[in-house]
Amino acid sequence: MRNSTSAVVTPVPDAPFYRAVGDEVEVFRAAARRGLPVLLKGPTGCGKTRFVEAMAHQLGRDLITVAGHEDMTSADLVGRFLLKGGETVWVDGPLTRAVREGAIFYLDEVVEARQDTTVVIHPLADHRRELPVDRLGTTLQAAPGFQLVISYNPGYQSVLKNLKESTRQRFIAIELGYPAADVETEVVAYEAGIDIETARALVKLAYAIRNLDGSPLREVSSTRMLILAGGLAAEGLSLRSAVHAAVVQVLSDDHDVIRALDELVNTVLPQT
Amino acid sequence: MRNSTSAVVTPVPDAPFYRAVGDEVEVFRAAARRGLPVLLKGPTGCGKTRFVEAMAHQLGRDLITVAGHEDMTSADLVGRFLLKGGETVWVDGPLTRAVREGAIFYLDEVVEARQDTTVVIHPLADHRRELPVDRLGTTLQAAPGFQLVISYNPGYQSVLKNLKESTRQRFIAIELGYPAADVETEVVAYEAGIDIETARALVKLAYAIRNLDGSPLREVSSTRMLILAGGLAAEGLSLRSAVHAAVVQVLSDDHDVIRALDELVNTVLPQT
Amino acid sequence: MRNSTSAVVTPVPDAPFYRAVGDEVEVFRAAARRGLPVLLKGPTGCGKTRFVEAMAHQLGRDLITVAGHEDMTSADLVGRFLLKGGETVWVDGPLTRAVREGAIFYLDEVVEARQDTTVVIHPLADHRRELPVDRLGTTLQAAPGFQLVISYNPGYQSVLKNLKESTRQRFIAIELGYPAADVETEVVAYEAGIDIETARALVKLAYAIRNLDGSPLREVSSTRMLILAGGLAAEGLSLRSAVHAAVVQVLSDDHDVIRALDELVNTVLPQT
Amino acid sequence: MRNSTSAVVTPVPDAPFYRAVGDEVEVFRAAARRGLPVLLKGPTGCGKTRFVEAMAHQLGRDLITVAGHEDMTSADLVGRFLLKGGETVWVDGPLTRAVREGAIFYLDEVVEARQDTTVVIHPLADHRRELPVDRLGTTLQAAPGFQLVISYNPGYQSVLKNLKESTRQRFIAIELGYPAADVETEVVAYEAGIDIETARALVKLAYAIRNLDGSPLREVSSTRMLILAGGLAAEGLSLRSAVHAAVVQVLSDDHDVIRALDELVNTVLPQT
Amino acid sequence: MRNSTSAVVTPVPDAPFYRAVGDEVEVFRAAARRGLPVLLKGPTGCGKTRFVEAMAHQLGRDLITVAGHEDMTSADLVGRFLLKGGETVWVDGPLTRAVREGAIFYLDEVVEARQDTTVVIHPLADHRRELPVDRLGTTLQAAPGFQLVISYNPGYQSVLKNLKESTRQRFIAIELGYPAADVETEVVAYEAGIDIETARALVKLAYAIRNLDGSPLREVSSTRMLILAGGLAAEGLSLRSAVHAAVVQVLSDDHDVIRALDELVNTVLPQT
Amino acid sequence: MRNSTSAVVTPVPDAPFYRAVGDEVEVFRAAARRGLPVLLKGPTGCGKTRFVEAMAHQLGRDLITVAGHEDMTSADLVGRFLLKGGETVWVDGPLTRAVREGAIFYLDEVVEARQDTTVVIHPLADHRRELPVDRLGTTLQAAPGFQLVISYNPGYQSVLKNLKESTRQRFIAIELGYPAADVETEVVAYEAGIDIETARALVKLAYAIRNLDGSPLREVSSTRMLILAGGLAAEGLSLRSAVHAAVVQVLSDDHDVIRALDELVNTVLPQT
Repeated sequence: MRNSTSAVVTPVPDAPFYRAVGDEVEVFRAAARRGLPVLLKGPTGCGKTRFVEAMAHQLGRDLITVAGHEDMTSADLVGRFLLKGGETVWVDGPLTRAVREGAIFYLDEVVEARQDTTVVIHPLADHRRELPVDRLGTTLQAAPGFQLVISYNPGYQSVLKNLKESTRQRFIAIELGYPAADVETEVVAYEAGIDIETARALVKLAYAIRNLDGSPLREVSSTRMLILAGGLAAEGLSLRSAVHAAVVQVLSDDHDVIRALDELVNTVLPQT
Repeated sequence: MRNSTSAVVTPVPDAPFYRAVGDEVEVFRAAARRGLPVLLKGPTGCGKTRFVEAMAHQLGRDLITVAGHEDMTSADLVGRFLLKGGETVWVDGPLTRAVREGAIFYLDEVVEARQDTTVVIHPLADHRRELPVDRLGTTLQAAPGFQLVISYNPGYQSVLKNLKESTRQRFIAIELGYPAADVETEVVAYEAGIDIETARALVKLAYAIRNLDGSPLREVSSTRMLILAGGLAAEGLSLRSAVHAAVVQVLSDDHDVIRALDELVNTVLPQT
Repeated sequence: MRNSTSAVVTPVPDAPFYRAVGDEVEVFRAAARRGLPVLLKGPTGCGKTRFVEAMAHQLGRDLITVAGHEDMTSADLVGRFLLKGGETVWVDGPLTRAVREGAIFYLDEVVEARQDTTVVIHPLADHRRELPVDRLGTTLQAAPGFQLVISYNPGYQSVLKNLKESTRQRFIAIELGYPAADVETEVVAYEAGIDIETARALVKLAYAIRNLDGSPLREVSSTRMLILAGGLAAEGLSLRSAVHAAVVQVLSDDHDVIRALDELVNTVLPQT
Repeated sequence: MRNSTSAVVTPVPDAPFYRAVGDEVEVFRAAARRGLPVLLKGPTGCGKTRFVEAMAHQLGRDLITVAGHEDMTSADLVGRFLLKGGETVWVDGPLTRAVREGAIFYLDEVVEARQDTTVVIHPLADHRRELPVDRLGTTLQAAPGFQLVISYNPGYQSVLKNLKESTRQRFIAIELGYPAADVETEVVAYEAGIDIETARALVKLAYAIRNLDGSPLREVSSTRMLILAGGLAAEGLSLRSAVHAAVVQVLSDDHDVIRALDELVNTVLPQT
Repeated sequence: MRNSTSAVVTPVPDAPFYRAVGDEVEVFRAAARRGLPVLLKGPTGCGKTRFVEAMAHQLGRDLITVAGHEDMTSADLVGRFLLKGGETVWVDGPLTRAVREGAIFYLDEVVEARQDTTVVIHPLADHRRELPVDRLGTTLQAAPGFQLVISYNPGYQSVLKNLKESTRQRFIAIELGYPAADVETEVVAYEAGIDIETARALVKLAYAIRNLDGSPLREVSSTRMLILAGGLAAEGLSLRSAVHAAVVQVLSDDHDVIRALDELVNTVLPQT
Repeated sequence: MRNSTSAVVTPVPDAPFYRAVGDEVEVFRAAARRGLPVLLKGPTGCGKTRFVEAMAHQLGRDLITVAGHEDMTSADLVGRFLLKGGETVWVDGPLTRAVREGAIFYLDEVVEARQDTTVVIHPLADHRRELPVDRLGTTLQAAPGFQLVISYNPGYQSVLKNLKESTRQRFIAIELGYPAADVETEVVAYEAGIDIETARALVKLAYAIRNLDGSPLREVSSTRMLILAGGLAAEGLSLRSAVHAAVVQVLSDDHDVIRALDELVNTVLPQT
């Protein structure tokens, strides 16, 4: 356990393994120089968290990450009073800490959170760069280096859960996708600890699934799933068993679809 | 961090950069002289907040700003008892402070708030100019200079979220739109810190997007988005990359629409 | 600020300006002599609050006003225990105070409140004239002079929000409408502080709007809106600018409707 | 104010004015002798509360009345712990008091209450006659004389709000209607303090309204409304003004219906 | 009042009057020997509670009964901390007490409860026989003799309120119906304290109602209703008045149906 | 009762009876070696809990089990402050304890829980293996040996209740079904304590039900139901009575379906 003041901060000591897909690094660094907030768009498992970790490391800043969910309230971000020894003591929330310390604050899956959590970031996301802390009767000016990053998956947008236009227009938007085959192969081999040939076979399979016509799948095979499959293979499972557990059974619960995917796996993967 | 009593107050020390679009300044000042509440109507990013800041500065009054959201309760505006050292202490909310100090109170995006927050402003919005503070068993008479300002975006009105007629009829309504091209060019150049030529190109692009026939976009390019694009360009990004990140990717998640917008950008922007 | 015991009471020291429209004064005074509760029906801005203020003044009673809203609970009316100095202290709600002191209690927009607030007034609205205060384990007998007045706008009635029959049948019902043109002219001139000619022009405009065939407006121009327009004119705005801000922009957000209303204004108002 | 221990108890000192309509008195007294719970069915304003008051007086028992509403919880009936002087003190709810003291407990409009309030009365409504008080870890045996009475209006039954069959089958059901014309005339004259002739005219009007073919009214004229109209007349209003305020305006908000009812009134009432 | 530790426990001192309908006694005793949980299915008023009381008496165990309702939480079953004298004290809920003492725990109308109350019984309903008490950080092993019994009425099953399959499959299911005519006659005579002839007439009537073709009734005449009717007759009401109050008025609010049922009663009951 | 620190931990002292169906043991052990989270898919009563118990025993780790339900909050998993002796004391939730102690944490029926409980496991389910404890301002690194296991029943998936893709893709998925007939016979005989012949008859019956064409049943006969039926038979009930109570009445409430199932039972079971 880390000590109680380092909290949810990730100091990102070692350079994370990240391969750029487009000009996302340049755009992020330009936004960072100007203190502009960034919105990351992209599918599940394409590497959004890794990208933010890599940027935090390059810029030499702490990274504080929070995942949005339906029951998150603004107090979860800003802080609250706790009772300690008969006295109420204020405890900063993760957003307040990032504002005070000039860290990068990453709110993952922002559309899952309730609206009061998104409204609380508005004054931090425009020229004011300030955080009203109503319970303390105070407004904090963000320290230099503070940067707001939020992410969401456009494929999950719905009428009920989307980003308010008045929130969205405050952000610089960067779209991330799955990396090109060569880059993805390198990533899978490195992260799963497997040889390049096996990684290349997994990426080839992923592209076969991503290119299926009229696919009944809600999601395609992500880079993350390939890494998990590679990890099982590295532990001694056959590649087909590993892919069945980490890709096929994850992509569907329908027995017909599972059988079809297994056949595709048999066609694409090398016959060991 | 400001000290804990200056709270969410914006003293507006420097004259904000504001260019009038119509007679909104005269109407606001007439309403202010009579203490009448004002309703600002207009699209996202057209400068409503800047307008209120400019008016507060002209009138020499403090400005207290609160953004409405679904979970806001009347206690968030009026105040609540907090436990400090075993004793409950009353802490004024931002509305109560504005009422006591004769400040301008700006409730942004009022239709997002729950109805009890709008009902609480009724007696402040008619001839009574008073705020019942039920928890204290007190009614406050608004200090001279207190003025209520609320805003909303008519384009977002829905059956579920609209302004009650009995609230709306208490207000003087001012509609704000995007400024004329010359004024907008001046604003973008000043705020983004770029030359007039680049700003003019951005405004020309904005008008091209605003005039698209049968546009699938929910929103058009706002002045705020142009300022963000200009800011990225000022940090060294090419203008097209800046516009792609601050305008195109913000306006849509649809890959076909994004491609069409990028083509429009290529046509309108100068070929550097 | 008034002292903390005078609370939300309006002692109505000066005779409010009120002109009777029908026999509403006689009916109200007969109900008051017998202690019967009164239900006021009428559109927004027609003067319901002013009528109650005038009756309270005529009868020499204090007036306690509360506006119904969705989050109002019976505790907001009856009272609650508050923690003060480690001790819980009971604080009367506004209804309880009116019951103890024999004041007129005016619950504005009753249908907005939740049903527990309407049920709590049942025993006060029939022959019992008593208020059970469950939290104190007490039942209060209403002091002589206590009278219950509620209001609602029949135009807003819906399936979800209406007055329960078992509540409604306990009340004497008085319907108020906009006053006749002569009376309305007098009211507007007096309240806005403008000359009779200008007031007459505003009332003429109001009648033109009220008589529009197939009007797309949800509401018509109320007396209150005319007073606001007159007020802006008294502050030096042109009458057309004042009417545009206080009437036209308030009545609609639709640009076509706004243009048509402005043309109607140009036709009806004198050409200054 | 009564003292704080007599609470919501109505000792019913004077014999209430009640005229039997059918065999309801015999059925109620038989149920009371056996301690069986009673369900009163009937329209608004037909005299259900008066009937229970009369029975309580005849049987020499205290009467504790509670009106059901959507926000009522079982704690409102059974009791709760309150903080007094730093110590939590249990305060009996009205149902617990009735159970301890052998009073009649009348839960008016039971279908308005949430289901946990109806389930809490189940063990009191069958052979067990006991009330589990979970918060005290105790089960109370009802004192002799305790009797449970609930009421509802079948005309308001809906899919969402009805009496669970498992609740309903525990009760003896008595249906009450409006009394016969002679009895109703006597009741109206007595309660309103008017002469028999005026009362007879009011009852004649009520029957005319109750017998309207294809009536658009949700409710008909109840005995209670006639008493209110009579009361206004006793205070000096003309009978037609009194009926307009206490009957016509209460029955409808529709101007066409109001006009038709006023014409019916003119036809039926004597031309004074 | 019983003392505060005997709580909602029914020691069932006297043998309850119960007549077996099928092999329900053998199945229940077999389940009890093995500690298997039992699900009782059957219509309202058929004697489910009496059956459990009889089994508890036969097996010499205490019986703790709780009725499920929409607002019941798992804390209502398991227990909670209460503030006593400035100290928080844990108070066992009824389920925890049954688990500690080896009693029969009967959760009546289980589908009315929220799902967290049904999930809390899962580990008690399989081979684990344990109750996690999260608030205490403890898991209780059920004492020998503990048995879980739940009931529901299949006729009330709906999409919104049904028993989760994963709950249902943990139980031994016993279906109870109305007893055969001879047994039911004996039960009614005994419980109501009336002679066998009158009881037989009531049972004959019940069968006539249960066998109505195309009946518009949601429920038929239950054994419990016959006992209530018999009770009123024992108090001196005519049998027809008793049946009208305890059966006819309970079964329907529709005047046409009530009239038809009264005619059926006149046909079936002896003409006294 | 176990002592208060062993909590909801199952040390799994005796080797649970488990027979592998496919390669689920190998996949689970490979995932465990790498610390990857596992998702178990399968129908009710197929042995998911037993499988996790067997794995925990094989791997020599403690097992902490929690069943998801609609009212479960993240605090139920992570922990909360409790008031003890006037001081607030932090009490670890079951997930926090598993993280600290390196146990297997099994969240059964994960889709029943609210989304904040699933989001809280995200950082534990990817390369970070950390648990943010917001209330303590701490982030815990999972001890070696910690493994996350969740389960759900694909047959219950609905639009409202399903596993978020961003959650699902973090897991290795293992599908479990009913075991083959020989294995299932062995399991039933062992668990119910009956002879192999009787167990074989029960399994034959289960397969007959599972293979019914156009079955109106929502569920088929699970292994768990066969064990319950066998247990009743072991207590002396006839096999048909046991099957009627533990299988037939559990599978349906419809009398026609129950009759058909009983006939099937008579055909399949040996005529004793």
